Amino acid sequence: MNKLPDIGSNFAEWYQEVLVQAEVIDASPTKGCFVIRPYGYAMWEGIQQELDKKIKALGVQNAYFPLLIPEAFLKKEAKHIEGFSPELAVVTHGGGNKLEEPLVVRPTSETIIYHMFAKWITSWRDLPLSINQWANVVRWEMRTRPFVRSLEFLWQEGHTAHATHEEAVTMATNALAMYKDLYENYLAVPAIAGVKSESERFAGADQTYTVEGLMQDGKALQMCTSHVLAQSFPASFDVNYQDKDGTVKVPHCTSWGFTTRSVGALIMTHGDGNGLIMPPRVAPIQVVIVPIFKTDEERTAILAKVRGIKKDLDAQGVRCVLDDDETKTPGAKFFHWELRGVPVRVEMGPKDLVSNNVVLVNRIETDKAKKKSVVSADNLVSSVTDLLQTIQNNLLQRARDRMRSQWHQADKLATFGPQMDANGGLYQTGWCGSPDCEAKVKEFKGTIRCLLDEKQHSTCMHCTQPSKTDILVAKAY
Amino acid sequence: MNKLPDIGSNFAEWYQEVLVQAEVIDASPTKGCFVIRPYGYAMWEGIQQELDKKIKALGVQNAYFPLLIPEAFLKKEAKHIEGFSPELAVVTHGGGNKLEEPLVVRPTSETIIYHMFAKWITSWRDLPLSINQWANVVRWEMRTRPFVRSLEFLWQEGHTAHATHEEAVTMATNALAMYKDLYENYLAVPAIAGVKSESERFAGADQTYTVEGLMQDGKALQMCTSHVLAQSFPASFDVNYQDKDGTVKVPHCTSWGFTTRSVGALIMTHGDGNGLIMPPRVAPIQVVIVPIFKTDEERTAILAKVRGIKKDLDAQGVRCVLDDDETKTPGAKFFHWELRGVPVRVEMGPKDLVSNNVVLVNRIETDKAKKKSVVSADNLVSSVTDLLQTIQNNLLQRARDRMRSQWHQADKLATFGPQMDANGGLYQTGWCGSPDCEAKVKEFKGTIRCLLDEKQHSTCMHCTQPSKTDILVAKAY
Repeated sequence: MNKLPDIGSNFAEWYQEVLVQAEVIDASPTKGCFVIRPYGYAMWEGIQQELDKKIKALGVQNAYFPLLIPEAFLKKEAKHIEGFSPELAVVTHGGGNKLEEPLVVRPTSETIIYHMFAKWITSWRDLPLSINQWANVVRWEMRTRPFVRSLEFLWQEGHTAHATHEEAVTMATNALAMYKDLYENYLAVPAIAGVKSESERFAGADQTYTVEGLMQDGKALQMCTSHVLAQSFPASFDVNYQDKDGTVKVPHCTSWGFTTRSVGALIMTHGDGNGLIMPPRVAPIQVVIVPIFKTDEERTAILAKVRGIKKDLDAQGVRCVLDDDETKTPGAKFFHWELRGVPVRVEMGPKDLVSNNVVLVNRIETDKAKKKSVVSADNLVSSVTDLLQTIQNNLLQRARDRMRSQWHQADKLATFGPQMDANGGLYQTGWCGSPDCEAKVKEFKGTIRCLLDEKQHSTCMHCTQPSKTDILVAKAY
Repeated sequence: MNKLPDIGSNFAEWYQEVLVQAEVIDASPTKGCFVIRPYGYAMWEGIQQELDKKIKALGVQNAYFPLLIPEAFLKKEAKHIEGFSPELAVVTHGGGNKLEEPLVVRPTSETIIYHMFAKWITSWRDLPLSINQWANVVRWEMRTRPFVRSLEFLWQEGHTAHATHEEAVTMATNALAMYKDLYENYLAVPAIAGVKSESERFAGADQTYTVEGLMQDGKALQMCTSHVLAQSFPASFDVNYQDKDGTVKVPHCTSWGFTTRSVGALIMTHGDGNGLIMPPRVAPIQVVIVPIFKTDEERTAILAKVRGIKKDLDAQGVRCVLDDDETKTPGAKFFHWELRGVPVRVEMGPKDLVSNNVVLVNRIETDKAKKKSVVSADNLVSSVTDLLQTIQNNLLQRARDRMRSQWHQADKLATFGPQMDANGGLYQTGWCGSPDCEAKVKEFKGTIRCLLDEKQHSTCMHCTQPSKTDILVAKAY
């Protein structure tokens, strides 16, 4: 085990290295892909369970569509193929023979799902139709980064069809609100909800909503999106229905996706110099118990006590590990579990046994006086669950404070551009709406992350014409 | 909605048709693939949740490995590539360019997982290593049948490495026992556990264990398998470790998989002339409530009452739908939900309201006298949960009785072969162990489904030499 690269001065290497050392991912022999190891996959399973419940609560049903899509399908919608064709993986041979028509590995499933919608939607009675799929997708990426950008990733993709544009907008914004809630209240990651500029929209969408985050290195991360698709999109697949009045109409569709990128966002938001930090709600392991003893007599008594503690925590549904490996020193165990970001450590040694106390160690505190607390073994379960809740709250607060400190009100791109390029951060400014002014942001390696609801800036960051809307500008992953 | 084909005389068409009419699957535009619609996917979700708990209870951890595997990997193990090469889908182009080395879409993941095991296993301390993956796989199939055989399917694949052969055998048989338990106690499908003959083993395995079922048309179905792999398999990927004594050894590996084929087994075991029959434990909908009324006054009173009933059932965790669609007649609703195999229907009409009763209708009974029962509305929840349990038990018993009636003790292949070819069924007989005698079974369109533990037959079915083991012979999917 090597020392982690310095998180402050070398965030990118810290990220790569902490993922490998904490056994979250590993390099794979397939270029551009990563192996998600059990500890990392457990984070995704937690997210899946939480999100799946929320999706079902919106009245959306899970289904499954083929991985391989006839190539012609992607070509039916002009903007869609334009957006995705550079990223496709193509199956040309199957069962030892060259295929008559190549199949693409799905980069997203609108095309095949709309083909089915055309069959399933014939009357106004069939609307809304709300489907979700948990799946893997492949997009050919050259510059990969674990979770953030890889050739294959895991996600859910929601696809819905509605009678009116308003209903579609409501669905897309409800999906966005669901995502923002999951980020903030489950992953303790502050989430900015906004609208994408036209140039940053999903290929074939009329409107793209986004949830943006700010990582510790001052770069923004697009954490998930939802889209209201152009009606031409379902129309390209002959999706239409007979309305109550007998006229034939095209439904208004949405799609929305949440990916394993969320695991990257989680890690890049909370980790520190000692490794990962897991917010308790998503933590695969919430508590590790480390017994400390020297003599055989102490060993017997302390192991009996900590086994009882583990049983009590298990009974309360606390995800808890007792590390009773006798080939390792307590210090080695502290290091091991801190690296993995387990939020609470319970220590019990001979003196604690005598006083009927245990020591609780808080993973996120750096102040030594606050890091440890001694509590009665009798109240252990409630002390632990209280501390887990405190850590969950504090992680969100801490990340919010950091975001606030890096969120700047800015007037002129010429002024804030160099600052952004050098230091990162979020810059709220005005925009006239022109693609030319938007393109200027690239000169400072930034992009418009999203359009904001509020309006504090009256002139455009570049041309100084009247601003139509406030925007948030940042360098991004 | 058309009438279903006759289940007795035309089982294959009944199966295809019931899946479409009950909205379990739909044809897809990708040849050889099917769309799993929400009602079918909910069955798979139930199975996944149940099986995932059992897998974790065995100490196995979930992880995720890339979908696309370098082609050279499959060639490292001679028998493995021989078995799988006719079934591969090959990606030759990515991101607009021809790939230097083609990638195969995983048909199973031993090869890429062993590549990782070689990295993760270095010492005896790293064993056992037990990993599971929930994933989609692709095997190029020409003759497809929904769930039973399709180009793409969903599954879990367990992969473990152990210090000794005995431990590997224990793992493979534990996995098999877990599957058998799931089939019988969750899906109410009788399951025969046995060992495959050499010719039927997984490509690269020393031993393949199987769970076989008998469908209503008298054909056997291989419902899942587990394997002890030849040591040469991990050795081909340089998987080895240093043992306590300092010597370098190759671990003993297993793999085991359970697929969406289980949904096919479930449906082919229980369905009847009116449609699907869902065993209550896996049923996406366990109870449908149908209110019956004519006048507005009745409507108000009965809807209030059945909404209360639904609330009570929901509170007890019963998966329950209230069908209050007023555009459909009660008769149309009965038909709709019977087709979908919902095990219990609750009816309430004006007379029931007066007498404070409800009518429970049992989906699996054909005897009219037994099909309906009148119970007090006050005890409804316990009456319903009792009936669900009864139906679960009776479905398993009924399927067991059918299997028993079609399980024949047989001496000579020449005698039972024509009977099997004409009528299906299971034939327990003796076998000398020679591949020549095994090959003769094919003349009657059958195969050895598995070797059995018990020994009732002393001579081989074909050559009449002494039998080494009892076998079960059948025509199969």
